[in-house]
Amino acid sequence: MNQDYIKPDNWSIIEEGFDVERVKSSESLFSIGNGAMGQRANFEEAYSGPTFQGSYIAGVYYPDKTKVGWWKNGYPEYFAKVLNAPNWIGINVTINGEKLDLYRSKSVTNFRRELNMKEGWYKRSFNAVLMNGVEIAIESTRFLSLDLDEVGAIRYEVTPINQDVEIVFTPYLDSGITNEDTNWDDKFWDTYDLSHSGDSAYILSKTMKTEFHVCTGMLNQVFVDHTKKDVYPKVETNGTYVNLSYELEVAKGKTASIVKFGGYTVSLNHKQEDLVTASTTVLKQASDSGFDALLDLQKQAWSKIWEMADIAIEGDVKAQQGIRFNIFQLNQTYLGKDPRLNIGPKGFTGEKYGGSTYWDTEAYCIPFYMATKDQVVARNLLTYRYQHLDKAIENAEKLGFTNGAALYPMVTMNGEECHNEWEITFEEIHRNGAMTFAIYNYHRYTGDYSYIPEKGLEVMIGVARFWHQRATFSTDKNKYVILGVTGPNEYENNINNNWYTNYLAKWCIDYCVENIKKVKDEYSSDYKRIIEKTKLTQEEIDSMLEVANKMYFPYSEKHQVYLQQDGFLDKELITVADLDKSQRPINQKWSWDRILRSPYIKQADTLQGFYMFEDHFTKEELAKHFDFYEPFTVHESSLSPCVHSIQAAALDRMDQAYTFYLRTSRLDLDDYNKEVEEGLHITSMAGTWMSIVEGFGGLRIKNDRLSFTPKIPKEWKGYTFNVNFRNQILKVNVSQQGTSFNLEGDQELMIYVDGKEFKISPDSLITV
Amino acid sequence: MNQDYIKPDNWSIIEEGFDVERVKSSESLFSIGNGAMGQRANFEEAYSGPTFQGSYIAGVYYPDKTKVGWWKNGYPEYFAKVLNAPNWIGINVTINGEKLDLYRSKSVTNFRRELNMKEGWYKRSFNAVLMNGVEIAIESTRFLSLDLDEVGAIRYEVTPINQDVEIVFTPYLDSGITNEDTNWDDKFWDTYDLSHSGDSAYILSKTMKTEFHVCTGMLNQVFVDHTKKDVYPKVETNGTYVNLSYELEVAKGKTASIVKFGGYTVSLNHKQEDLVTASTTVLKQASDSGFDALLDLQKQAWSKIWEMADIAIEGDVKAQQGIRFNIFQLNQTYLGKDPRLNIGPKGFTGEKYGGSTYWDTEAYCIPFYMATKDQVVARNLLTYRYQHLDKAIENAEKLGFTNGAALYPMVTMNGEECHNEWEITFEEIHRNGAMTFAIYNYHRYTGDYSYIPEKGLEVMIGVARFWHQRATFSTDKNKYVILGVTGPNEYENNINNNWYTNYLAKWCIDYCVENIKKVKDEYSSDYKRIIEKTKLTQEEIDSMLEVANKMYFPYSEKHQVYLQQDGFLDKELITVADLDKSQRPINQKWSWDRILRSPYIKQADTLQGFYMFEDHFTKEELAKHFDFYEPFTVHESSLSPCVHSIQAAALDRMDQAYTFYLRTSRLDLDDYNKEVEEGLHITSMAGTWMSIVEGFGGLRIKNDRLSFTPKIPKEWKGYTFNVNFRNQILKVNVSQQGTSFNLEGDQELMIYVDGKEFKISPDSLITV
Repeated sequence: MNQDYIKPDNWSIIEEGFDVERVKSSESLFSIGNGAMGQRANFEEAYSGPTFQGSYIAGVYYPDKTKVGWWKNGYPEYFAKVLNAPNWIGINVTINGEKLDLYRSKSVTNFRRELNMKEGWYKRSFNAVLMNGVEIAIESTRFLSLDLDEVGAIRYEVTPINQDVEIVFTPYLDSGITNEDTNWDDKFWDTYDLSHSGDSAYILSKTMKTEFHVCTGMLNQVFVDHTKKDVYPKVETNGTYVNLSYELEVAKGKTASIVKFGGYTVSLNHKQEDLVTASTTVLKQASDSGFDALLDLQKQAWSKIWEMADIAIEGDVKAQQGIRFNIFQLNQTYLGKDPRLNIGPKGFTGEKYGGSTYWDTEAYCIPFYMATKDQVVARNLLTYRYQHLDKAIENAEKLGFTNGAALYPMVTMNGEECHNEWEITFEEIHRNGAMTFAIYNYHRYTGDYSYIPEKGLEVMIGVARFWHQRATFSTDKNKYVILGVTGPNEYENNINNNWYTNYLAKWCIDYCVENIKKVKDEYSSDYKRIIEKTKLTQEEIDSMLEVANKMYFPYSEKHQVYLQQDGFLDKELITVADLDKSQRPINQKWSWDRILRSPYIKQADTLQGFYMFEDHFTKEELAKHFDFYEPFTVHESSLSPCVHSIQAAALDRMDQAYTFYLRTSRLDLDDYNKEVEEGLHITSMAGTWMSIVEGFGGLRIKNDRLSFTPKIPKEWKGYTFNVNFRNQILKVNVSQQGTSFNLEGDQELMIYVDGKEFKISPDSLITV
Repeated sequence: MNQDYIKPDNWSIIEEGFDVERVKSSESLFSIGNGAMGQRANFEEAYSGPTFQGSYIAGVYYPDKTKVGWWKNGYPEYFAKVLNAPNWIGINVTINGEKLDLYRSKSVTNFRRELNMKEGWYKRSFNAVLMNGVEIAIESTRFLSLDLDEVGAIRYEVTPINQDVEIVFTPYLDSGITNEDTNWDDKFWDTYDLSHSGDSAYILSKTMKTEFHVCTGMLNQVFVDHTKKDVYPKVETNGTYVNLSYELEVAKGKTASIVKFGGYTVSLNHKQEDLVTASTTVLKQASDSGFDALLDLQKQAWSKIWEMADIAIEGDVKAQQGIRFNIFQLNQTYLGKDPRLNIGPKGFTGEKYGGSTYWDTEAYCIPFYMATKDQVVARNLLTYRYQHLDKAIENAEKLGFTNGAALYPMVTMNGEECHNEWEITFEEIHRNGAMTFAIYNYHRYTGDYSYIPEKGLEVMIGVARFWHQRATFSTDKNKYVILGVTGPNEYENNINNNWYTNYLAKWCIDYCVENIKKVKDEYSSDYKRIIEKTKLTQEEIDSMLEVANKMYFPYSEKHQVYLQQDGFLDKELITVADLDKSQRPINQKWSWDRILRSPYIKQADTLQGFYMFEDHFTKEELAKHFDFYEPFTVHESSLSPCVHSIQAAALDRMDQAYTFYLRTSRLDLDDYNKEVEEGLHITSMAGTWMSIVEGFGGLRIKNDRLSFTPKIPKEWKGYTFNVNFRNQILKVNVSQQGTSFNLEGDQELMIYVDGKEFKISPDSLITV
């Protein structure tokens, strides 16, 4: 563990005490978002110390020109960057002529931050003594509205402690911002209009190349002693900023405050010429309601989210705080309203990893969103990939594939590839299988087949075609092989016959063909449309099946396990336990070649396949593979421990399962990887949720029904989670004594618990 | 073939006609060098069309900060760049107030370039009509002196054709130059002093970071109608240039000329404070001799080089021109006088490929230099690596090796690694074996064992230690394996058990241990010193031998060939002949993953091993391996065809051998790879020489003697080459009728011809 300053609390993230060394970490940890926009917890007032400024708008990106040492054919020319957007939160504060700046104050005391996850707001308070001797108390409360998702609100309060003072609040908008992550120091934003009127101001700017137009707006109200003051602001502007200055005389002990409503309207959602009007309208709506009323709505909205998504843990406050932080951040990042958006790996908390979408979404996030939201959310996530199908076909063409074969990008924003290491971009192709798996998973969970004839089958065909063409026939083995890949374990590159990839490829073809038949039989007009569009022939289908039927899987008779790849047993099989601690994490201590020839596994690979296709294998087979691979797994990916946790639980190894759980749930809060400054690991947070619900709770879908095998770590008294299953809510409470199920819905539900059938009636509780 | 404008000629490279599209290519092809410096064939006068300016000083480089898309542990922080050096060749020419610029002239006729390889000079002549209507004839002759290797000389002659004119010659020095190849647009040179005196001028500048100090100097003489004129020049300077202007009145039909001596003195060879004096002295020495006398010396010096190095071909002028161009360029690049220098892949003809030294030197160049120069030259090349041993040990340490294991860099200038693709830098480790092989080859050829106890054994121990640590034990195979490598065939990355690498590793250990014993027995004081320094123990030696003895070699019983690597037979084994022509060259047409999973071989890999260790295998084995691998070889490396040519000749497949020969010998002249603009492929030129001497001539060392199996392509009447063997010169003439040997020396020489012994007496000729 690398830092431990966050106070344990069931519902809040709390920091106490001011430490300049922690500012950037806290800026990440206290980030707020509402699905449409988000921001790091930067200070409103000026701060001259080390800080990482960031405010982000969902779906707005910049195509930065790719930078590589050595170009390889097929690399994407551009690389979508998450963009730092114009700053609307800034409020300069001057007290008796001195600008408030915590980095240059005489003293800062009682510094406290709280991110209230239950209610969705962030508050910072402190006392400061300025260089001019004035002592003030500050409290600033901020939230991004879930109801008006183009609006954020700040209430910034200043109370002079030791003398009467003159306070100048200067709320401003600034589009002269830069990205930390830029390849060529390009200019990302072009500001083309500024305007102001009374207490409002607007900046119109557009992103270079992509031409997203954004109106950044603000509307301010000032108060002294809780009474609204009509102060006419002094205006200052230049090409990229607008300042409005409010001068106030404030008596000692009285409070001056400014309420600033701000945010973005974007050409993704409005006509370009309407952006200012839209901004004016929504800001007026917010200010008419007022800060408190808007905050009440915020609390209600979050309450609704928690109603479905919460996991309550009794008897372990740090575990409780961890899981709620994960659930909270996932909901801040993506609410599922807009099929053009997705779940960025850093959400709205940093710039790293250009692009927003990894296979993480399909493999880890969809189960979370399916169980905690309406099923339309998961369907929107699937639709996102459907909308990118043409780009995936183009992407495959760049690599030499033909005839509608689709290769989904490793990372993307708009469907184009945003990654450029050959061993990943060109070779980590298993990601493609996750697209089909997510469709299967969606149907399995929701029972909604309609997505497949409407959209899903086309994706499946593109993916199956890719595998068909990508596999090659080995005369030597008399089998189809898949050469030159990188599996989920990125500590192996350019390997042959990665078991996970081969298994997934075969499954994708089989499942696609199965659905082609079903759609042909049951959805003939869809079938006709799809066949016309894809020009799929029976001959091609037969040839696909030939590949699937003769797929090669590396296997060790001696160990009775499938091998992660050809040649795995040639490695020096020294377990992680036997590796000197000074050598870890190996990705920081070892050169890449050494990592590659070692047996160490960055994240579940063969076991990832056992997780996804658990019912294809016996428990004994799972145990054999777990016992073989787990000792070599270093879990240096944030996505790794959750799969191991779920499998350890399935194998009744609860101590191990609990250890893995702890590792995933407080990854960012305790900064295990020493990089929280750069932002949070959003997508892996869904894995944490899975560790509890699928791991401890044992949730599966069996025979079209929910199935549970509830277990509980000995460290906990109990835990409760909810799942939305086909529009009914099932509340599950697991304690050391037993498990109870409570159905909120209107139809009887048959479930399995530990393999036995139970019938649950609406609004009734059963205990097992 | 992509261009064909060079006129066939036995001794010269000739271009006729002016074509702006060819300027950059010709700048490469007509490059001149003298081992200490070199330059592209840029025009002396101003030229505003597309040009690639380049002048280079041996051993002077800049450590550019590494640029990669994604950093990996172990990458070198800096990357030595070949540096464009201050321009000393420039002579602006103004005729009646108009600056001569071929890109902006009314017409250019009779344009001709000649690079006279026999005599070592470059001449350009043309007639131009200026925009002001003046017609002039120009002839410019240039060479870099072999005798005074800090001096170059230019004679630039202008003859007005249609009127009397005023001509202004403005010879200049300019250190305000830039590199085309720079990662971060750093400033590479810092100019800190300029001076001039009479007809001379000097610029003192130093390279940033590396602080090589260079004095660039010039000394001019002007003539009208071949009579020296004492014209006092007008001087113009700024921070980075000095112009001297000479105004001359020239009558129609008379010739005005300027002779400019210029060049560099460098802190590698002089004290920093003596640089200007050294420059003054050497330029004065040159001008005292005069242009013609210095040119005579140049002709004599080249005559001496050719006496040893020439290969004469009768009956095939293009083949003749090709081989002489190769021999000429190798000698322009490296003359073997200075053990701090090496043979850069682009010599003095371009900037590409930072660093100067690849394993090309050990594998391809050393045989050429051993046979065509005094053996001290090859010894200097070996010493270069000995001087870098400490850096090679550091380099290995960066990758996690210990205890004096040495990994020589893939590319280097000063011993540090200059390459940063993980699959090459960290994995193309076979290069390390070439260091030991070159020592073995040197001893085999020269009979000089003294290098081994003095220096070579330490290198061999460092290399053997590396292989010892790099190999790992496979319990599954009960053998030592070498995982995660890139072989000479760079179209395979991160493969396991590359046969060439494994074979070389075993051989390096065996040969090292053999020499440890020999040095122990015969050079006890050297032995003591080496053991003290390396701390080598018997235990370590035994452990090394254990690895060598149990090394694994992939083999196919079915095909009866060693496999290039594990899993090679899993590929789709479609031969190059069956590959559609539109797909080639695959490195331009295919994405990297597709290349990697294909069977196509960029350059000899398994066959490279058969070339180096030919006597370990039978001719039948060679044939089997050649027949197996040749059909998959695409020869997309300039280093590839020569090995195949030699082996085809050994297998009596002369048509094939001849085809391969043609491909290598005119690679640059005919611009096969469409990139000659960037510079020439210097190191592969040694392979062309090998194709004739070792291929057609069949030169080998057997039982400490020269052995030949002379063959001749049916297209040729005859060919002649010389070899320096242990300080005697053997001239070999092969014709369709037979082979004759002529020994210039003082001792009888026993040789084998087609396996039979022959005795050759000094200064006698025998015909076989």
